[in-house]
Amino acid sequence: LSDGRSIGDVGEHSFLERLCARLSARAAASGSSAAHRVLVGPGDDCAVVGPSAEPLALTTDTVVEEVHFRRGWLSPAEIGERVVTVNLSDLAAMAATPRFCLAAVAIPSDRPARDLDELLDACAGWCEAAGAVLVGGNVTRADRLSVTVTAIGAVEGRWLARSGARPGDRIVVTGTLGGAAAAVASWLAGAEPPAALRERFARPVARLAAGRALAAAGARAAVDVSDGLLADLGHLCTASGVGALVARARLPRLPEVARLDASGQDFAATGGEDYELVAALPPEVAADLARLAGECGVELTDVGECTAAAGVVMLDEAGRDVTPARGGFDHFAGRSAAGASRSETR
Amino acid sequence: LSDGRSIGDVGEHSFLERLCARLSARAAASGSSAAHRVLVGPGDDCAVVGPSAEPLALTTDTVVEEVHFRRGWLSPAEIGERVVTVNLSDLAAMAATPRFCLAAVAIPSDRPARDLDELLDACAGWCEAAGAVLVGGNVTRADRLSVTVTAIGAVEGRWLARSGARPGDRIVVTGTLGGAAAAVASWLAGAEPPAALRERFARPVARLAAGRALAAAGARAAVDVSDGLLADLGHLCTASGVGALVARARLPRLPEVARLDASGQDFAATGGEDYELVAALPPEVAADLARLAGECGVELTDVGECTAAAGVVMLDEAGRDVTPARGGFDHFAGRSAAGASRSETR
Repeated sequence: LSDGRSIGDVGEHSFLERLCARLSARAAASGSSAAHRVLVGPGDDCAVVGPSAEPLALTTDTVVEEVHFRRGWLSPAEIGERVVTVNLSDLAAMAATPRFCLAAVAIPSDRPARDLDELLDACAGWCEAAGAVLVGGNVTRADRLSVTVTAIGAVEGRWLARSGARPGDRIVVTGTLGGAAAAVASWLAGAEPPAALRERFARPVARLAAGRALAAAGARAAVDVSDGLLADLGHLCTASGVGALVARARLPRLPEVARLDASGQDFAATGGEDYELVAALPPEVAADLARLAGECGVELTDVGECTAAAGVVMLDEAGRDVTPARGGFDHFAGRSAAGASRSETR
Repeated sequence: LSDGRSIGDVGEHSFLERLCARLSARAAASGSSAAHRVLVGPGDDCAVVGPSAEPLALTTDTVVEEVHFRRGWLSPAEIGERVVTVNLSDLAAMAATPRFCLAAVAIPSDRPARDLDELLDACAGWCEAAGAVLVGGNVTRADRLSVTVTAIGAVEGRWLARSGARPGDRIVVTGTLGGAAAAVASWLAGAEPPAALRERFARPVARLAAGRALAAAGARAAVDVSDGLLADLGHLCTASGVGALVARARLPRLPEVARLDASGQDFAATGGEDYELVAALPPEVAADLARLAGECGVELTDVGECTAAAGVVMLDEAGRDVTPARGGFDHFAGRSAAGASRSETR
């Protein structure tokens, strides 16, 4: 960018798209030797690199206190578990198996040392529960708590990219949607969320078995729901060169979310951070979802289909277009100046 | 920790030592299967994991604006290059060859988008210059700029841990010491540092070829100088169960640093962030340093020897103990409250 626009003015997604395109070109150019084979470059849920008996999936993601959550919402242990899940979910979306994690923590020096103990113990425990080992990391001082985890997984079968969906593919989601965002809305309104919603935000689970089972069954593309169903499905559609029609009434919701969405909210369609998977399945694969759900270890719901026409459109039961104007969370939107108080969080 | 002491009160190094011990035990317990073989766990410059034709070295490190540098000291491109070097230097200290990097950036939304472009382009370019590919990353919003890079390297020969040094081994350092810290001192005093010192802070180079050449020649242990020579040598000695005697007069210094150290400073002994390597070499390997320096592509200096007695002691030319009371930088020291203004940086 040769002009002086801020990141907030450019907008997160247009900025990232441009950036990924540029870094992908560089990675492709420099990643052509045998030792540096880049099978999937920047812009997908994970990079996939080789060579090795099995390729590796690589991903990194950061959670920042007062941006992704407010102090007091989560215990130190929940923060540690959550940032591990955020990364393992990217491995799940590629159908990779977690092997190793690293954790880099930035933390104010006046925080109780016990908090850091609990956070890192929870990181290690959550890695172990997913079959991975926390092999290293780093701690540094900062004004705000933030944790960056890097997850390294093995791709044992075929991997699932965001690209590959075709018109006519069924759109299938795991678990339920909107619970995490509904919990955040409750906190922001000054109320402790109902336990079921709080759990969705505080202790999401990466759908690792589901990602691998969907890949093995013949899913064509997948992405995890971090920015909201419509936004992340939009990323999958853009990468695949397709569009999508989503049936609002079919979105899987906890009862608490169903009540909120029935009264005019759109948590299931636009709420981020559920860390469920959205996959595009050939119709014949989606025909027996109950059997496939058994293999995935989690409920699967058919919420719509891929279309030849670009764009993600949500329809109500009468077939009316009820697509919200803004389908997902932009980390950089709605901020006037660094350090200003915020009303939004993610 | 069951008491309520803060991280600053406990102190970075004692905290990290305790933490590494606990995480190492966990990693060893869970990293015993073939797929998760942990060859070197938490506490060294990198983790080393297998299996594969060649093991992988994994490391992650963060730089935080206003902690590791002040805004205005470095251009966005220099920030990008520097955080890559910080990580590649850990690979260098293990004698690993860089393959892939990931970059997670947290940045205020009012920063010019151009800054982020320049930072990430420099990250990618600096990776490429070292033979690695920047394959992915993440951008999130935060009050302060911070960048966490994860570097993944291949161990093609033997790796160099911090442990393994023996009494009688010669202590050898690459390049020159203290330049980065002298540049910081100059900035903190309100003056632009001399170009040669600024370059040491702004554009350090990871000693990748040197790490591999030292390992191939038979070095027994190595560490990179991020906290200061005496501090990092202390880590090597602790891991190896030895001590060290260092000759203050022999420390390699740029002329600007030599002048400062001659007038009562101790930049070469205690200044961090030079990203040189310190290695323990059997005396016969250290006998022909000029030849070995040719293989390393950088000057090597014999600065002392490992001892059976624990502790790192620095001697002047008259043989007097001139070890400073505090040998290295503690990220968490000297802070009373988060957000308070700081006089120290790293």
